[in-house]
Amino acid sequence: MSFDPLTPTSFLRRSALVYRDRPAVVDGDLDWSYLELWERSGRLAGLLRAAGVGGGDRVAALGSNSQLMLLAHHGVPLAGAILVPMNVRLSAVELAYIVRHSGARVLLCDRELSALGAEIAAATGISLLTEDEVEAGLPDSPAFENPVADERLPLSINYTSGTTGRPKGVVYHHRGAYLQSLAMAFHLGLRADSVLLWIVPMFHCHGWCLTWGATAAGSLHVCQRQVDAGEIWRLIRERGVSHAAAAPTVLTAIAAHPDAVADPMRRPIRIATGGSPPSPTLLARMAELNVDITHAYGLTETFGPVMLCDWHPEWDRLDGQTRAKLKARQGVGNVIAEQPRIVDEDGVDVPADGETSGELVLRGNDVMLGYFEDPEASAAAQLEGWFRTGDVGVMHPDNYVELRDRSKDVIISGGENIASVEVEQAIASFPGVLEVAVVAAPDERWGERPVAFVTVAPGGEIDPPAVVAHVREQIAPFKAPREVLVVDDLPRTATGKIQKYVLRQQLWGDQERRIGA
Amino acid sequence: MSFDPLTPTSFLRRSALVYRDRPAVVDGDLDWSYLELWERSGRLAGLLRAAGVGGGDRVAALGSNSQLMLLAHHGVPLAGAILVPMNVRLSAVELAYIVRHSGARVLLCDRELSALGAEIAAATGISLLTEDEVEAGLPDSPAFENPVADERLPLSINYTSGTTGRPKGVVYHHRGAYLQSLAMAFHLGLRADSVLLWIVPMFHCHGWCLTWGATAAGSLHVCQRQVDAGEIWRLIRERGVSHAAAAPTVLTAIAAHPDAVADPMRRPIRIATGGSPPSPTLLARMAELNVDITHAYGLTETFGPVMLCDWHPEWDRLDGQTRAKLKARQGVGNVIAEQPRIVDEDGVDVPADGETSGELVLRGNDVMLGYFEDPEASAAAQLEGWFRTGDVGVMHPDNYVELRDRSKDVIISGGENIASVEVEQAIASFPGVLEVAVVAAPDERWGERPVAFVTVAPGGEIDPPAVVAHVREQIAPFKAPREVLVVDDLPRTATGKIQKYVLRQQLWGDQERRIGA
Repeated sequence: MSFDPLTPTSFLRRSALVYRDRPAVVDGDLDWSYLELWERSGRLAGLLRAAGVGGGDRVAALGSNSQLMLLAHHGVPLAGAILVPMNVRLSAVELAYIVRHSGARVLLCDRELSALGAEIAAATGISLLTEDEVEAGLPDSPAFENPVADERLPLSINYTSGTTGRPKGVVYHHRGAYLQSLAMAFHLGLRADSVLLWIVPMFHCHGWCLTWGATAAGSLHVCQRQVDAGEIWRLIRERGVSHAAAAPTVLTAIAAHPDAVADPMRRPIRIATGGSPPSPTLLARMAELNVDITHAYGLTETFGPVMLCDWHPEWDRLDGQTRAKLKARQGVGNVIAEQPRIVDEDGVDVPADGETSGELVLRGNDVMLGYFEDPEASAAAQLEGWFRTGDVGVMHPDNYVELRDRSKDVIISGGENIASVEVEQAIASFPGVLEVAVVAAPDERWGERPVAFVTVAPGGEIDPPAVVAHVREQIAPFKAPREVLVVDDLPRTATGKIQKYVLRQQLWGDQERRIGA
Repeated sequence: MSFDPLTPTSFLRRSALVYRDRPAVVDGDLDWSYLELWERSGRLAGLLRAAGVGGGDRVAALGSNSQLMLLAHHGVPLAGAILVPMNVRLSAVELAYIVRHSGARVLLCDRELSALGAEIAAATGISLLTEDEVEAGLPDSPAFENPVADERLPLSINYTSGTTGRPKGVVYHHRGAYLQSLAMAFHLGLRADSVLLWIVPMFHCHGWCLTWGATAAGSLHVCQRQVDAGEIWRLIRERGVSHAAAAPTVLTAIAAHPDAVADPMRRPIRIATGGSPPSPTLLARMAELNVDITHAYGLTETFGPVMLCDWHPEWDRLDGQTRAKLKARQGVGNVIAEQPRIVDEDGVDVPADGETSGELVLRGNDVMLGYFEDPEASAAAQLEGWFRTGDVGVMHPDNYVELRDRSKDVIISGGENIASVEVEQAIASFPGVLEVAVVAAPDERWGERPVAFVTVAPGGEIDPPAVVAHVREQIAPFKAPREVLVVDDLPRTATGKIQKYVLRQQLWGDQERRIGA
C-alpha cells in the first residue's frame, strides 16, 4: 500500500477528479473541462491500442501548441506507449529520420500539418492519424490503465533540435517527468486559478514539463498554434493569463508590440524564460508591464529547466542594474534537482569565485536516461556519473551559477577567452538594439575576433561605430567587436534560439575552425 | 546520472546552498541561517556517529517545537539513523515503553525536559543527550553523507498517541517524506519569503512534514516551545508570520484571545488545520482576522495531511454558510497522494452520492511501511493493498470526501447511526458555545443515546435546554442530545484532539460498549 510508481499522467487523473468541471484547455473555440481532457486522453489511449500500439511502442506527434499535443502527452503514456514529440519546423527529410530512428508506429499530427504528416507517412510507412481522424476515431471506451510498472522506464524520446549533425533522441523516464512537473508547478507558483499561455513549444522538452506541471496544479492551458505577439496580448486580455514560458527573443517581441501597455487592472504575469539571459533593458520593460521574469536554464537532456535563478526577497530592494545582473545568472538547481557543479577539465570543482570558468555538469532525477540507441553518444555525455552540458560558466561565491557561453561559442582571441554572452549584454544596453548575436570570425593575427550581428528595434536607428565605442566603455577593449553588422533578422531554431553556427558559417566559409572542447 | 534516492534531507542541503545566509530558524533569542542549520545538522550527525550510532539505529527525540527538534529532523537521518520523535505529554512509563520498543540507542531531549529525559534514561539505560550537551558536544567536523541508499528504507518511527492500548510505531520511509514535504510546500504556497509559526508539534507526523517542507521552500521556521495564544499573536506581529498549522481547538483559542484584532497592514496568514472540521463560526471569525484556513486531513499512518479540501476559486463567491459547508469536507488526495476511496464492508466503493457512508481507505507513496515489529497490526490495517483509516464518511458527487465520524465515535441509537460530528456542528452554532464533544451514553431503550459536553466562550452563558431546542431545529430530532453538560475543559491528547474515550468512560463506567467495527 506504500509505493506507487511516479508517472506524470497521475496528475491529470487527480485533476479530473478534483477539478472535474473546471476549465482545462482552450484552443480557439474548443473548451474542455478537466474531466473531458482526462476522458479524451483515455479514449486516445483506446484508439492507439486499437491501432495496434502496445507497451513500449513509440508514438510520434507532430503538432504545435494544440489540443492534440496536450492530449498526446497524456493519452500516449496511458496506452503504455512512448511519446516522440517532433519539432514542426524540421524538414520532411529530418522528420522521416526521427520516425525511422525512433521506430515509431503511429504518427499523430495537427490539422494544419496534415500535408507534412502525409509526406512523412509516405516516406516511412508509418500509420498517420491526423487531428480530424483522431477526433472522428476516438472510441467510446477509454483505456485507463496505470501506464507504467516501473517509474524508471522510458516515457518519451525528445530529439534535440540539432544545431549540427543528426538529431539525438533524449530518453525521458516517468520518475523524472513527474518530479520535474512538480518542481515547475512549485517554482512558478501555478495554482487552480492560474492561466498558462502556451508559448514555449510542447514539442520542446514537453514545454518544460508544463504539459503535466500545469495540469497538476489544475491550471487552465491556453493553447496558441502560431506564436504571435499581437495574439499573445489579446489572449492575456481576454483569458486573464497569469503564467507563460518563452525564449527571450519572444519576450522581446512581446515587449516591443504596440499592444504592450501597462494595465494596472490586469493580474500580474509570471513568465519563465531561458536559452539566453534576459537583458537589463528587457527586464526593466517587463517590470513596467507588470510582468515578472523567472530566469531558468535547462537542456533537452534535463527535462527542461533543471536550474533557475531562485530569487531572494531582499533582492527586490536593489537597484535595477544590480537586480538585472543577479537575474542574468542561471542560478541553482530547482527544488528536485541535484545542485549543479562547475568543473575543470579533470572534473574537479573550480573555486566559487565568480571568475574561474569551467564546464557545467549535472546529475539527478531530472537527467535523461541516455540517447536512444546511441550508447557512444550517451557515454560521451557523462563524466563520472555527471552529465556534461557543454556550457561554460562560473560559480559565484553565493553558489549561483552564471554561464558565460556554450563551449563552442567561446571566442578565443590572442589566447584569451571572450564569452560571447558578455559582449552581447554590453551591446544590448545600447539604445535602439533589439537583438544581438556575437560570434567568432577568423582573424589572421589573433586567431579569432568577435563580430556582432544586431537587429534594430522598431523606430530605432544604429550607428555601428557608436556601438563599438559604447562597448569599449563597458568591457575590456580586446573583447569589443570591430565589426557590428546590422541585419533584418537573426537565424533561429524552432524554439527561438539564435543559430550562431549559421552566422559563423557566413564568416568562416570553408575555413576550418579549431576549438578546444 | 539519472537517479538519486529521494530523501527529505536533500531539501536542507539545497537550501543551505541557495538561501545560505537567509534566516532559517528562530527559537527565542537563537537565530540561525540556512547554512548554520545545515552545518549544525551535519555536526549533530557527527556527534551521533561518535556516540556509536550507526546505519539503521534508532535515535529518540523528546522535544517540543525547539531548535533541537528541527536539528534532529535533519541530523539523525544524515547520520544514517532512524528518528523516533516522542510525544512530550506522555508519562515516563509510556516514554520508556517507546524507547524499549523502538530499541533506540540515544535519546535527545530539550533543556526543559532534561529531568524527564533522565528518568527515562535511568529506566531504560538509553544514552541521554540533552540540548545543552548537544550544544557543547557538537564536533567541528560534520558528517554529510547521503543518508540513504534506498529511498524505501525507514526514515523514522512515529508512535501513535494511542487513545487506547499500547502505542504503535508507524514506520515512515524517505521517499514518502520527500514527496509529502513537496506536497505540503506546494499546497500551502510556502516560499522563500514565508514565515512558518510552529504550532502543530514536530513530534506529531514531523509537524505534517513541514520540518522538511518549509525547509524545501527556504521559509523561516519560528519555533514556539509552549503553545500560547498570546505568544502566537506576539510572534505574528513581530515576526511577520505567514503560515501555520494547528488543530481547530488551538485556532479557537487564537480567535478568542483579546489580542486577536484585524490589522489590514499585516500580511494574510494561511493556517492549515485538521483533526476535526473547522466550524462555520470559526471560519467566519478567521476571515475577519485575515486568516485563510486550509482544511486538511491525515493520520500518523499517512505522513500527516494525505488529503485536503482543495479550494476552487469559484467557491469564494458563495455565501459564508455554503463556503463553510464546502470547507468542512476533508476533500481529496493531495497532489502526490493516490485518490481516497470510501468503501463498504466488502471493500466495494459506495456510491458518490454524499449520503451512503463507508470507511475511508488510502494508498500511495505517503502511506506508512507498516507498524514497527507488529506484523499482526500491520496486516489488520490493510484491505487489499489499501490502508483502513477507521474513519467513516461519504463521497460527494464532486469526488470530495466528507468524514462523518471515527468508526468508534458513531452513536448507534435505535439502530440508526448518528454521526457525532454532525451533532457537534449543530451545537457549535449556538451562541456562547466555545467547544463541544458529543459521545454515546448507554441507553436502556435505544442502546445508545448522544450526550454533549460543552465549554463556554469567555463572557458567554449557556442554557442547556435552549441548546437542545436549537439543535432540534437543525437536524433530525432523534440525533439531538437530551443532555448537554457544561464543563470547564475537555480532555485532550498532546496534539489537541479531544479524547472522546475519556468522556465515554465517565458515562459508561464498567458497562461494556459493543460496537460494530
